[in-house]
Amino acid sequence: MALRGVDALVITDRSNITYLTGYTAKSAYVPQAVVISIQQEEPTFILRKMDAPAALHETFMARDKVIGYPEALVGDPDVDGYDAIIDFVIDVGPSNRGVGLEIGGLFAPSAEKFKARLPRARIVDCTGAVTRIRMVKSDLEISRMREAAAITDAGIMRASEIIRAGVREVDAVSEIMKTLVRGANGKPGTWLATPYFITSPRTGAAHITWTEDILRRGSQVNLEIAGVRHGYTAPMSRTFSIGRPSDRLRRVHEAQMAGLQAGLGAVRAGRTCHDVARAIYGTLDKKGIKKESRCGYPIGIDWMEKTASLKEGDLTVLKPNMTFHLHLGNWAIEEDFGYLISESIRVTESGVEVLTSAPRQLFELPSAA
Amino acid sequence: MALRGVDALVITDRSNITYLTGYTAKSAYVPQAVVISIQQEEPTFILRKMDAPAALHETFMARDKVIGYPEALVGDPDVDGYDAIIDFVIDVGPSNRGVGLEIGGLFAPSAEKFKARLPRARIVDCTGAVTRIRMVKSDLEISRMREAAAITDAGIMRASEIIRAGVREVDAVSEIMKTLVRGANGKPGTWLATPYFITSPRTGAAHITWTEDILRRGSQVNLEIAGVRHGYTAPMSRTFSIGRPSDRLRRVHEAQMAGLQAGLGAVRAGRTCHDVARAIYGTLDKKGIKKESRCGYPIGIDWMEKTASLKEGDLTVLKPNMTFHLHLGNWAIEEDFGYLISESIRVTESGVEVLTSAPRQLFELPSAA
Repeated sequence: MALRGVDALVITDRSNITYLTGYTAKSAYVPQAVVISIQQEEPTFILRKMDAPAALHETFMARDKVIGYPEALVGDPDVDGYDAIIDFVIDVGPSNRGVGLEIGGLFAPSAEKFKARLPRARIVDCTGAVTRIRMVKSDLEISRMREAAAITDAGIMRASEIIRAGVREVDAVSEIMKTLVRGANGKPGTWLATPYFITSPRTGAAHITWTEDILRRGSQVNLEIAGVRHGYTAPMSRTFSIGRPSDRLRRVHEAQMAGLQAGLGAVRAGRTCHDVARAIYGTLDKKGIKKESRCGYPIGIDWMEKTASLKEGDLTVLKPNMTFHLHLGNWAIEEDFGYLISESIRVTESGVEVLTSAPRQLFELPSAA
Repeated sequence: MALRGVDALVITDRSNITYLTGYTAKSAYVPQAVVISIQQEEPTFILRKMDAPAALHETFMARDKVIGYPEALVGDPDVDGYDAIIDFVIDVGPSNRGVGLEIGGLFAPSAEKFKARLPRARIVDCTGAVTRIRMVKSDLEISRMREAAAITDAGIMRASEIIRAGVREVDAVSEIMKTLVRGANGKPGTWLATPYFITSPRTGAAHITWTEDILRRGSQVNLEIAGVRHGYTAPMSRTFSIGRPSDRLRRVHEAQMAGLQAGLGAVRAGRTCHDVARAIYGTLDKKGIKKESRCGYPIGIDWMEKTASLKEGDLTVLKPNMTFHLHLGNWAIEEDFGYLISESIRVTESGVEVLTSAPRQLFELPSAA
């Protein structure tokens, strides 16, 4: 904060709030902020009154550092929770100081409101400041992610048991969800990230999910799931074939597997995101496969961190305990054909720890239950 | 558009995109827009390349009206998908025209980018324009919401079977999820809205969910769920008591039931949101119960519509086929004690249709399985 010349920092990104406080309740659809002020020893969490009890239950914060703003600020076209947050900022420090905001994640009218109501303050854009710090995990965070990864693994294995010709997609996916919530090793999922369960002929699409159909012999399922432990995720993708995979699918799988191996081999503290991407694209090129999308992104709280990308030109240097979803997802092979394989990984001094551990294969499943 | 003086309207709100096109894929974490231009007969959907196949699968749009922008625009600090969207706006019309944006839902840097890259255009804030139109549903939309409501009902009834002392919270909630996905009357859930399953002593919190604990005799469960059909939701809340409810809980339940009845009795085309809220607060006051939060909000696509509120002072006039979550949720009774009861409703000429139909009661469940 001193480096950026701010003596109040207003954190509104919901994942950053989780990082700073432990709060995971899903209340970010209305304004809320953790305000860190050099005038005060402890941060203050300002949120909607009906959500304040969740902050008291979930966080370390003292009772007088959790402020529930009145319900009258909800659903009013003229005022909202940001007015309470700005009132607090005005109350705790001089009006002409530097105030740090995560402007990149504020809706335009809210950013304007901060500027209009703090006319003498110097507004400093601190978007990404906390998010970048989150990139290197503590050992405690890593242990949560290992727990999440074990749940993800269990979900993939359950999928391999339940995906069969003749089964309704919703019956398969609801079994997978059940596993993701019941958890693994006595550690339940603490939230459900709804699975992407994408079947032929829609496997070229990245973010749709199941249909009302019945799984068929010859169909392909692209599954992308993530276990969740106290906000932390460990995503993973696998591709399933009901019956013998087509030659096209088998060829793509072999190329993408080679790409994944090359990517894993390139990960090490001191290398860059670019280096990892280069290793993957180079291998795919040799195998005659074009992949246009990036090869992954940092993970942690709430799935994706908006910081680096595993793509060419991203010179972010890898450090121990950075974590990524190393994603060989390739949706655009043809409009109706895509393929997925990915792992959640941790960067180590000497290489990589793969957090997810379900078999790294194209699952070939029996046509009949 | 003519009234607002715009000849290009850029729709970025994900629920409005669903409304206009049928698209429900979960890709709104990167820029996407439906652009309606008076220069063109049909709207154009510009979205990330890996999501374009989903638009072709899910919408009515012609192939040349779905534009997938390059993956290079993802994860780059300097450019993003809005550059592709703005390029399109520039291409299809004169530079000095009126361009409508949903500024209220654009992050501040994105709103700035539109202004900077369209310097001769007159930017018109059209936030809420489409959202307000969505308030009155078509009969087809109502039929989707009835299907969603039937799923919600099934989820509540499953909860009443599975919530027992000695059961893990995650086992109960995963069974409820299974019901919400498998659906009702042969109509599966097309997405899962993760349930709020809030147990003693956290029932004063609105948006946390299950814990790793085991349900206990004497515990209370506040459940808020919604079935989903092709984007449309029908939420509902009920409160469950394992064993005999306390006198406090019973008293609150009776007061809130009376409030709910008063609210339902006040709904009719021509009345206002204020009228409904007044009926509820007046009844609660007589029963000695204070409820600070609003009494509900419009529903449809993606749960909550950001338009009117069932609160005092909101003079929005009710019209036939408006739909609301009439919510007697009262979280702030005490810090560790809240109570929920709610229904999804449709306004009719002469009164109200309650879409949800699970028994309107405080569920008293056996202590033992």
